[in-house]
Amino acid sequence: MNDKRQKPLSTEPYKGVRDFYPEDMYVRKYLFDVMRTVVERYGYVEYDASVLEPTELYRAKTGDEIVNEQTYSFTDRGGRDVTLRPEMTPSVARMVAARARDLTFPLRWYSIPNIFRYERPQRGRLREHWQLNADIFGEAGSGADIEIISIARDIMQTFGATDADFTIRINHRALLNAIFSDYLGISNKQADALAKLIDRKAKLPHEAFKNQLTDIVGDKADTVLDCCETQTFDTLLARLPEQFNDMESVAELHNIFSTFSQEGATNVVLDPSLVRGFDYYTGVVFEVFDTNPGNNRSLFGGGRYDRLTEIFGTEPVSAVGFGMGDVTIRDFLQTRNLLPEYHSTADLYLCTTDSSLIGEAHRLAHTLRTKGLKVELNLSDKRVGDQIRIANKKAIPFVVCVGPTELETKQYKVKNLATSEEITVREEEIHEAIQVPKG
Amino acid sequence: MNDKRQKPLSTEPYKGVRDFYPEDMYVRKYLFDVMRTVVERYGYVEYDASVLEPTELYRAKTGDEIVNEQTYSFTDRGGRDVTLRPEMTPSVARMVAARARDLTFPLRWYSIPNIFRYERPQRGRLREHWQLNADIFGEAGSGADIEIISIARDIMQTFGATDADFTIRINHRALLNAIFSDYLGISNKQADALAKLIDRKAKLPHEAFKNQLTDIVGDKADTVLDCCETQTFDTLLARLPEQFNDMESVAELHNIFSTFSQEGATNVVLDPSLVRGFDYYTGVVFEVFDTNPGNNRSLFGGGRYDRLTEIFGTEPVSAVGFGMGDVTIRDFLQTRNLLPEYHSTADLYLCTTDSSLIGEAHRLAHTLRTKGLKVELNLSDKRVGDQIRIANKKAIPFVVCVGPTELETKQYKVKNLATSEEITVREEEIHEAIQVPKG
Repeated sequence: MNDKRQKPLSTEPYKGVRDFYPEDMYVRKYLFDVMRTVVERYGYVEYDASVLEPTELYRAKTGDEIVNEQTYSFTDRGGRDVTLRPEMTPSVARMVAARARDLTFPLRWYSIPNIFRYERPQRGRLREHWQLNADIFGEAGSGADIEIISIARDIMQTFGATDADFTIRINHRALLNAIFSDYLGISNKQADALAKLIDRKAKLPHEAFKNQLTDIVGDKADTVLDCCETQTFDTLLARLPEQFNDMESVAELHNIFSTFSQEGATNVVLDPSLVRGFDYYTGVVFEVFDTNPGNNRSLFGGGRYDRLTEIFGTEPVSAVGFGMGDVTIRDFLQTRNLLPEYHSTADLYLCTTDSSLIGEAHRLAHTLRTKGLKVELNLSDKRVGDQIRIANKKAIPFVVCVGPTELETKQYKVKNLATSEEITVREEEIHEAIQVPKG
Repeated sequence: MNDKRQKPLSTEPYKGVRDFYPEDMYVRKYLFDVMRTVVERYGYVEYDASVLEPTELYRAKTGDEIVNEQTYSFTDRGGRDVTLRPEMTPSVARMVAARARDLTFPLRWYSIPNIFRYERPQRGRLREHWQLNADIFGEAGSGADIEIISIARDIMQTFGATDADFTIRINHRALLNAIFSDYLGISNKQADALAKLIDRKAKLPHEAFKNQLTDIVGDKADTVLDCCETQTFDTLLARLPEQFNDMESVAELHNIFSTFSQEGATNVVLDPSLVRGFDYYTGVVFEVFDTNPGNNRSLFGGGRYDRLTEIFGTEPVSAVGFGMGDVTIRDFLQTRNLLPEYHSTADLYLCTTDSSLIGEAHRLAHTLRTKGLKVELNLSDKRVGDQIRIANKKAIPFVVCVGPTELETKQYKVKNLATSEEITVREEEIHEAIQVPKG
């Protein structure tokens, strides 16, 4: 020990990260439970990796901005460059590549890792957040794209959101590239600049966007604008040369839109201006948007990245998936009043009229726990009224008091704290008298 | 994108951390599920904090070795000193201190964080591991000590271990200090050195231990050795001066040993040489040991630390808890064959005789999922035999095939892959025909 303890330490967490008190953790667990329940319906199995990864993993394929300025990277005591993962996709690609010969494809894998970005904390953008990642590896067709988008939609519905609350916007990287080269006839360099500009379209005023567009593509600016603002897949196709009808990407988009249309989905739409920042996407990309006009932003998204495992020198493995962050989805659900109310873990708080009876209460608690009840036990010499107040503040639904009379008669009063109802039952009936509300 | 991707990246994880493939994750989830189930029986609620903490949090109270040599610490881009938590206790003490005025005590809190230590990886000692932390805050009496030790014992029993498989060794820091000052009559400096030596007793050869002991306490070495090797609490008390009988620590130990004795526990014993490294313990300390003679080591432990929140300048909050690591407990359970067999998440693999039927299979899967089944769907044009082989390798228990006959007759064969039994049922009976083995 040293003298530093005489100067009080701050109780603040590190900047931009969160403490999860039980009430916060309750919400986080609810979000994760829904995510797990839905992906497991589709047979997805959970994996994980360490938050620490070799820095070189991110040098190859992630967008430049992230590698250079937004990662937590440092050198360990042994001279290794190490990074706190800024996303999960490179880690899972690494794991798949490492065992590509032994794994049974297709893989349906999910994980809910925490990920780190060094950025200025603001609403919906913290330095640490959690993100569901669900991916299919080894399935090239649009059936896999459809499954991934269906899961995204199913999770939103399981949270209680309807088609009116969110829109799923879809685009295709290969179609976008073909439009750039075969329709607009622009160079690769122009195409790169154009893709980056389109990606920022929603963040720019219309005039600024148009000016920058003209800087890149000159007099083709109006044609690009026209394409960007096309509302339906059929309208876009009608505008493009006939040869586009034979493209695989067009057939894939046809399959996707007709499937969701047959299922009655009214919120799955084309967005020709959707790019998504990451370099590694190769096919379908999609993003889910909040329809609230005051908050019309991307909630989460994903897409197909068939070549990411190549950076490990292995055969390409086709892959499609998405990532869904906990912060944006919590904000979305909160705005729509779709988050559950907090309850304690405990079903029952066991009070004692006198601290000499705690041993007896301990034995009763043991019996009730073996019957499946979650029981918190008073260990103090506080007055019974104070014990009940504690149970109430903790949002524990029931209390039972252990006193000399109860121990003698083996009859106990079970009190429901929400309704103040009290019923008297025999000891062996206590667990039946407790009907626990489920969150 | 740049040219680095032409040189293949390594698929190895960072040194000393683990990738969790689904089979590994299955074991980790099993361990966490048992931990959660047991602590929640006692009414504990879950909390969490970020793995990133201000470095100063560890300068005050953790053992020196850990702060100076064993942490992952670095300076962030904004000049802040930040550390990957090497243990959870300082974080939870920080959180409790931050809201000490608003929280409803006693708190019963648990968490299963990952924690980091920079050390040479070896069996049971990785750079990252997970650790259940369960603590009671705001309950000073030995009732809380008993509850915490009961939970540790209950978890071991729920894993399938019996009293013959493990021993719970208990000591008391206040008693140890009293023995040092009032019985041995040694100085504070000698006592510090002696505590550190005793802590390493099991790791030293007997001769080396005795020599170092003599260096510290001179001719009192034999007396110390005698105390260290005392087997029962009563024997130790008989050796100590009568005044010790009036000590609170002695009364607390009496209460603990008599409670476990009444419950029929045969594996809760005194260990006067038990110290536990952390500086912050103030009362009861305990460790759980494997009884396997080939592996007679500490599995996990805990104790009372009533003064840790003081470093934040708040009123002291009494606290008792323990930490249980995933690596040592997994090794223990593996040695005793107590780990479960792997099963996929999916209950059912849905095959198709022709890829043109995938749309129909997709609809059937949807119906079965709404009835609670976890269904993985074939999306490929592989032959049915190959599809079944995939389901088998993935350890999915049942398969159903969708072909033209099935679609016409609405009759399906449900095949149990473990037994090769096949039964024919109507479409709406499929979910009833699937009896899923639970791991």
